[in-house]
Amino acid sequence: MQGTVLYAPRDIRFEEREEPKIIRPTDAIIRTSVTCVCGSDLWPYRGINPITQPSPMGHEYCGIVEEVGSAVKSVKPGQFVIGSFFTSDNTCPTCQIGYQSSCQQREVINTAQAPLVRIPLADGSLVATPDLPSEELLPSLLALSDVMGTGWFAADAANVKSGSTVAVVGDGAVGLLGVLSATQMGAERIIAMSRHPSRQKLAREFGATDIVEERGQGAIDRIKEITKGIGADSVLECVGTQESMLQAKGCTRPGGYMSFVGVPHGVELNGQELFFSHIHLHGGPAPVRRYLPELIQLVWNREINPGKVFDLKLPLDKVAEGYRAMDERRAIKTLLYPNGTK
Amino acid sequence: MQGTVLYAPRDIRFEEREEPKIIRPTDAIIRTSVTCVCGSDLWPYRGINPITQPSPMGHEYCGIVEEVGSAVKSVKPGQFVIGSFFTSDNTCPTCQIGYQSSCQQREVINTAQAPLVRIPLADGSLVATPDLPSEELLPSLLALSDVMGTGWFAADAANVKSGSTVAVVGDGAVGLLGVLSATQMGAERIIAMSRHPSRQKLAREFGATDIVEERGQGAIDRIKEITKGIGADSVLECVGTQESMLQAKGCTRPGGYMSFVGVPHGVELNGQELFFSHIHLHGGPAPVRRYLPELIQLVWNREINPGKVFDLKLPLDKVAEGYRAMDERRAIKTLLYPNGTK
Repeated sequence: MQGTVLYAPRDIRFEEREEPKIIRPTDAIIRTSVTCVCGSDLWPYRGINPITQPSPMGHEYCGIVEEVGSAVKSVKPGQFVIGSFFTSDNTCPTCQIGYQSSCQQREVINTAQAPLVRIPLADGSLVATPDLPSEELLPSLLALSDVMGTGWFAADAANVKSGSTVAVVGDGAVGLLGVLSATQMGAERIIAMSRHPSRQKLAREFGATDIVEERGQGAIDRIKEITKGIGADSVLECVGTQESMLQAKGCTRPGGYMSFVGVPHGVELNGQELFFSHIHLHGGPAPVRRYLPELIQLVWNREINPGKVFDLKLPLDKVAEGYRAMDERRAIKTLLYPNGTK
Repeated sequence: MQGTVLYAPRDIRFEEREEPKIIRPTDAIIRTSVTCVCGSDLWPYRGINPITQPSPMGHEYCGIVEEVGSAVKSVKPGQFVIGSFFTSDNTCPTCQIGYQSSCQQREVINTAQAPLVRIPLADGSLVATPDLPSEELLPSLLALSDVMGTGWFAADAANVKSGSTVAVVGDGAVGLLGVLSATQMGAERIIAMSRHPSRQKLAREFGATDIVEERGQGAIDRIKEITKGIGADSVLECVGTQESMLQAKGCTRPGGYMSFVGVPHGVELNGQELFFSHIHLHGGPAPVRRYLPELIQLVWNREINPGKVFDLKLPLDKVAEGYRAMDERRAIKTLLYPNGTK
């Protein structure tokens, strides 16, 4: 089969790779229905995460179970399933308290931009949909594999609840889906921070009540102005830079909650500033597995449509263009379909 | 009157100072029944916080209301009251969600190691006891002014609840009262980290089930060993150094809670490490005012005896010796009584 491989900064190739096989009895092989490019794929693509060898890419996937190992009990060939970028046994003490993305046995998926992908710990990682989905549901189901689960975790970790005032730092797919999640959780006021008209528009569609275009101290001042000098109850940091973290911290009211869900790059937090800010801070790789059953149901019932973040759809062999468009911020998020399926 | 003034590192004097007066109609003047030296007083005493001018000292107090301003309604002369190191109006949006130590009008108390102290915002800051207390209750009531409230916040912010496994970093008065608080909140296992026999003994009296003497990675390894490789549900950081913060972080299970209640000095937290640790982090100056009514009741009913942390009691004019004993770790905490009262 052919799959996606990153050779060097901005050198993405779609080339022959070995077909995945069952290695352990707990594995499954999935035939990818759709996959996509993640904002976090841009870190190595841009060379910010160093690339030491040709690296297969992709950690977002959904599709039909092709084959399962002898120990797999909860999914079977022919089912449509969704999994997360981290596999999990879903039984260890860390999984039991809902942190499957820190599962004691977790493995990272990084070969999903391909027609077939091997998923270890299939029983604890994959969740099947009630039935085979219609094609129009595919983008939204795919979004659950990472970005929607991550936006949902961002809102959950920031304690968003009915009546909350929420600010979202970052207008990438995760930030936009953080807005959607906050809406679902009953937030009263949702301030999206964005200076891109198309992203502002989608933020509004997802439920944003206010848009703030400023950055840094200017953004903090605007949030304070909007919230009568107090700050937001909940702030979702969906970028991962020093600037965005400090912006998010500054927007959070004392006693409020800040989540951070983008892998921090070059971020150092001063202990004394954090102390006097009085905020609750929680983040990390989203425990997508925890939320999958609930989110699948919401998509299945057409209550949410997170697939709207895919504003570019390409056949898998055009993956390099998919990365380029996101790198240049021409696209929010690129969906990829294996050649010949559409 | 005479009061305590810090002139330079380790130069504490008890000298003539102006008697406090009502300045604003919301003020009260308290005649100090007992006061004490705080672990945080050692930062300037040791010169770690620079001293730019002779500074009055002391932020822990309880005593009899001597006089109130014309606007004060909730306390009156003759009542025995306790307040916090930060005053609060107890009505602003930050107070309303329980963060009185970040009150929009807060002022810091720093003149309490004296027979009389002025408390601004008396209505929002002071809480009266049900009646005049007997003398044996004074140490425990005084502890509520800071260390017990701070230990309680440490346990609360670290989400201690029935059945929790808790680790406490720091065996100062706050850490020890963090142990007592965790016991009150129903923790099942409480691991005190201490290498001082007298402090270990008090930790056990307060409910510690285990003692860990190691520090740094050794301490983390021991906590992992005790918790079957998982880490503690709740970790209370009660020191404020880089080493103690990293130790606390390393002891917390993924998805667990770490609080930090000692003012951090020289602490920088790496964003990516915090991200992958998956912990909840919350700290800051304890909102003592929030807890005062409940804690006064617990002391009044003899359910807790936080005053046990005072293992040195001196007349106020011997305050310099009180600092020295704590600096040299000969005393956990020094109680000071105005001369002539005992």
